[in-house]
Amino acid sequence: MSNKNNTLQKRPQRITIRDVAKLAGVSPATVSKVLNDAPHVSQESRQRVMSAVAKLDFRPNSIARSLKSRRTLTIGLITDDLEGVFTTSMMRGVEDVTSSRGFSVFLCNSYGNADKERAHLQLLLDKQVDGVILLSGYKVRERGAPALDLGSIPVVYLYQYTRDINVPCIVPDDFGGAEIGTNHLISLGRKRIGLINGPYHYEATHHRLEGYKSAIENAGISYDPSLVRSGKWYEDAGYMMAKDLMSMDNPPDALFCCSDSLAAGAIRALCELDIRVPDDIPVVGFDNRPFAAHHVPPLTTVALPLYEMGRMAGEMIVSAILGPTPEPGIHKVPCYLVRRESCGVLKASYNSVRDETGSYS
Amino acid sequence: MSNKNNTLQKRPQRITIRDVAKLAGVSPATVSKVLNDAPHVSQESRQRVMSAVAKLDFRPNSIARSLKSRRTLTIGLITDDLEGVFTTSMMRGVEDVTSSRGFSVFLCNSYGNADKERAHLQLLLDKQVDGVILLSGYKVRERGAPALDLGSIPVVYLYQYTRDINVPCIVPDDFGGAEIGTNHLISLGRKRIGLINGPYHYEATHHRLEGYKSAIENAGISYDPSLVRSGKWYEDAGYMMAKDLMSMDNPPDALFCCSDSLAAGAIRALCELDIRVPDDIPVVGFDNRPFAAHHVPPLTTVALPLYEMGRMAGEMIVSAILGPTPEPGIHKVPCYLVRRESCGVLKASYNSVRDETGSYS
Repeated sequence: MSNKNNTLQKRPQRITIRDVAKLAGVSPATVSKVLNDAPHVSQESRQRVMSAVAKLDFRPNSIARSLKSRRTLTIGLITDDLEGVFTTSMMRGVEDVTSSRGFSVFLCNSYGNADKERAHLQLLLDKQVDGVILLSGYKVRERGAPALDLGSIPVVYLYQYTRDINVPCIVPDDFGGAEIGTNHLISLGRKRIGLINGPYHYEATHHRLEGYKSAIENAGISYDPSLVRSGKWYEDAGYMMAKDLMSMDNPPDALFCCSDSLAAGAIRALCELDIRVPDDIPVVGFDNRPFAAHHVPPLTTVALPLYEMGRMAGEMIVSAILGPTPEPGIHKVPCYLVRRESCGVLKASYNSVRDETGSYS
Repeated sequence: MSNKNNTLQKRPQRITIRDVAKLAGVSPATVSKVLNDAPHVSQESRQRVMSAVAKLDFRPNSIARSLKSRRTLTIGLITDDLEGVFTTSMMRGVEDVTSSRGFSVFLCNSYGNADKERAHLQLLLDKQVDGVILLSGYKVRERGAPALDLGSIPVVYLYQYTRDINVPCIVPDDFGGAEIGTNHLISLGRKRIGLINGPYHYEATHHRLEGYKSAIENAGISYDPSLVRSGKWYEDAGYMMAKDLMSMDNPPDALFCCSDSLAAGAIRALCELDIRVPDDIPVVGFDNRPFAAHHVPPLTTVALPLYEMGRMAGEMIVSAILGPTPEPGIHKVPCYLVRRESCGVLKASYNSVRDETGSYS
């Protein structure tokens, strides 16, 4: 299968400013003036140059041009976990926005290692990037300044934040998300809503507990701490916490689980206990992982706005470069509810064969 | 939390070639000659310049430098599916190798759309990248030339191949992988090995069937087509095909499943039929997805060498740029066996709480 074809074609000869000048019948200096929008160029010369530019499909060498404009139209994106569960959705948002604005993104993987981050930042400085996005693929948390002083180059933090430098930081609104999930169960007439939460060394756990409390109390229900459990984020922990909650003398009448994996474990426990979902106990998850759409039953869940956060990071870094300067500090992106059958919505077509990623063959 | 700190520090003044010349007591031209390794520079001047470069931590402006060397130390990586199941492991391999060689990677997402690919390639040409990697996150398949003529810029295809231009193409060795998986079951004394394969519109399905046949026949077992099933790649299909195979009058004594999802479905079916894994029926999967390590029982599986393929793509593009030119045509990267309990290896510690990604909290 190899070596079958002829060698690569020669790259077409690059059109230069001289070619444009020749066709337009002006000097190269005039072409340069026109392209740089300099004063003292006649309307006629301008038209002749632009017409020659169009005819030749002339694209000024971006490197030579960037030497003048001091802009490279490049952005560095450093992630601490390229293979993180949430990383690629955010990266896709960044890439969509920046590429649509003519910027290219340098991908850098630091593995969460400060030395690697510093080495990447040095390469990015050397490449004279116009801006840098620091993306955490791990969890929302506070961190320090970039591992290398970037001087006046704009920085945006994504899925993490810092108090050490004054830059825009984009995080999900976990408090609001928990309010949305809890309110949905309240709207179904439920009053004893069990909360299956993550571990308390995650900031999200605290924000989600507060959002749950806020929704409960706004509905005139008094907060009952015996309905709240905390454990690891995963399936087995959800299974155990749901079993524990359902063994209470006065068990919950609904479950709000702070990850989709916890919800999957809780549903497995309810199934073993012959408790029907959603008829007896409606269940809401959190994250909107791809598998949530294809779970049995499909999960109603509070979506983490990953793609939206990535887009916002892209908008903010472009804005920081071209103006107007975005507001520094923490920007919370709203979560939103995705309604599926674990809370009794209309039957969806979820019987298709699928994999965990939600792709159909 | 915002607006608490002072504004960003000023970027340190950039050191120029003039500063180096002044400290070294030579002319800027001499500094330039030393840095470009030009002839006719005295040993003494060279030493004085390099010592000044070290003292000042001078880094030649990479843009100005690239105008001379005609190299930008950048590579474009275009994926057709940034959120594909296999994409990030390959990207991580590319990034690890290229960044260790001083290259930066432009991340581009084409969504498999030729217009988007063309637009990205145009931006990459404009940025004068030294090379381009085209990565399929979807499936190994043949495709055409890049959507834009790249002239003499080297290209490497990753997880896909082309016959239209003569470039290195990196794919997994599916045939060899299927031999490895089948041989493992044969080594356990099994003789009627059921094959649960993917759909025939995937090339991998054909290669894996041939690898299975080859291993069977090399072991002196005659190929029995009644033991072979084909369906979609996913869990439900594996469940159905396993039920079907086990209902035969002379059912298989082992199952080789051509994806981990198929294996998970097959194990669910065996469990329902009260058939023990691995004691009655050992099961081998394919892919080595993160969940395979934490399945119940943990899956023995043929690993797709995703990270390794990414590394090879990185090595080849760097080699194509700096020399020696890599061999064009298809390069198959070997798959390898990961032994776990679904084939009866030693007890592993798989009782920890975990999520589908294999991360521990």
